[in-house]
Amino acid sequence: MHYHVNGDLVPADEARVSVRDRGFMYGDAAFETLRAYGGDPFAWDAHRERLQRTAETLGFADAVPDDLRERVDETLAANDLTEAYVRLSVSRGVQPGKLTPDPDVDPTAVVLCSELPRGGRDGERVWDGPASVQTVRTRRIPGEAVPADAKTHNYLNGILGRLELRKAAAGGDPADECLVRDTDGNVVEGATSNLFFVTENGLRTPSADLDLLPGVTRDVVMDLARAEDFPVETGHYSLDAVRDADEAFLTNSTWEIRPVESVDGIPVGTGPMTKLLQRLFDDRVEAEHY
Amino acid sequence: MHYHVNGDLVPADEARVSVRDRGFMYGDAAFETLRAYGGDPFAWDAHRERLQRTAETLGFADAVPDDLRERVDETLAANDLTEAYVRLSVSRGVQPGKLTPDPDVDPTAVVLCSELPRGGRDGERVWDGPASVQTVRTRRIPGEAVPADAKTHNYLNGILGRLELRKAAAGGDPADECLVRDTDGNVVEGATSNLFFVTENGLRTPSADLDLLPGVTRDVVMDLARAEDFPVETGHYSLDAVRDADEAFLTNSTWEIRPVESVDGIPVGTGPMTKLLQRLFDDRVEAEHY
Repeated sequence: MHYHVNGDLVPADEARVSVRDRGFMYGDAAFETLRAYGGDPFAWDAHRERLQRTAETLGFADAVPDDLRERVDETLAANDLTEAYVRLSVSRGVQPGKLTPDPDVDPTAVVLCSELPRGGRDGERVWDGPASVQTVRTRRIPGEAVPADAKTHNYLNGILGRLELRKAAAGGDPADECLVRDTDGNVVEGATSNLFFVTENGLRTPSADLDLLPGVTRDVVMDLARAEDFPVETGHYSLDAVRDADEAFLTNSTWEIRPVESVDGIPVGTGPMTKLLQRLFDDRVEAEHY
Repeated sequence: MHYHVNGDLVPADEARVSVRDRGFMYGDAAFETLRAYGGDPFAWDAHRERLQRTAETLGFADAVPDDLRERVDETLAANDLTEAYVRLSVSRGVQPGKLTPDPDVDPTAVVLCSELPRGGRDGERVWDGPASVQTVRTRRIPGEAVPADAKTHNYLNGILGRLELRKAAAGGDPADECLVRDTDGNVVEGATSNLFFVTENGLRTPSADLDLLPGVTRDVVMDLARAEDFPVETGHYSLDAVRDADEAFLTNSTWEIRPVESVDGIPVGTGPMTKLLQRLFDDRVEAEHY
């Protein structure tokens, strides 16, 4: 396997950053994860734009390489991959030894990848089955502390949620994803996924005016539903609203649309809306990438 | 300069970690910064214990190397340093490609150092002068999202505060430190320091039941004050209480006790209590380390 580090393709075991890189010292870096189908990154523009927005939030707007797409293509080609997970990272790099960032940034840009099964129609999922979801005590970081729509290397909030699942399982199989609430008790998202659920009134998902990271796949799913004239409501929802849903599913770039089988042990059916959206999503992948 | 990486002393420009190290990918790591005087780390046991507590919070309690103190000594000796800044980091290392941590941890342990002026009586300060302090909009992360007493590589909250200072200065000299409030408006701390202030009733500092990182130097200062029978009150304070103070100062391991000259442009005198505590602190350093 080869990765792309600061403009060069290097063998994976030589792909390293300085221990003084601010991405390591402070998690002072922006990232994106995306999926390639047929050698082509899905929703490239949306990911590229969000990476840019995160870099702007962190005050290193000029650090994202202009040729980032070429680096992704080169990384996939070097590893002979067409169906792949891709992770892009841009850190503030090494700076003089103080916390306050220097405006003069020599960024560190990394492209990682790994193989995934073929997606699209008749494709294979990356997950084994529908997700078990469990509510965690860890709350989402409020936007007034760290903007929720910035995707950064400060990911401990999600890790602490996943650790709760591991602890709750006491050596058994942990739940697949956490259900995370904000400090006001509104359901916001999972550790690495957005949540949708279905009621008799249509498709619902927590509103982006809450402190959550609105995923690229979340946007695609809302577009697909609206194109079929299914009502989509974004709002503020309680745990009970989710537990009472007829169907629920999670979205992210690698899972795509993953049905939820249970929330806190309460079964949630996977039903026709989830299946239809999965089919529409697979069609979109197929139309654009194969 | 040589650094210690995973048990080996290596030249600084070869001191690197994998781009797949979770310390880089997610800031999934614990750290400490401390100061050596006369070749000897100040308050070693307190720093070692806090690093251990952070590692426990992050679920990798066994990852802190038993011989960490020897590694610090070796790093100082290799660089011929007696007066030094030292940074210890322990990350969860490289793991299979998912967010949920694997219980089987092969940690990455790093010791960095750099030279500082001699401290103690007649020593030299690391700072140029008293600190200008400015309130920022960025609020401290609530403990229910990420425990505040864990010192981790997720440091963007402090960086965003410092970026506000840089932006407010509009190309001029930014303030030296931010004054950070919690989401309820209580003053908690700076980006890298704890705050003390002096009123006619004695020494005051935000209580550790708030979401702040209780520094090792903060504890030492409270001990020194109490040993002199000065009243020390910990509590919940507003910005106005700080702005109205007779004296104020900041503490951390490298700054030691740094007087505050102004808060949001309002002058705060540096006075006898600050000077006395600085002298007592220098005496403690001298007694223990030279």
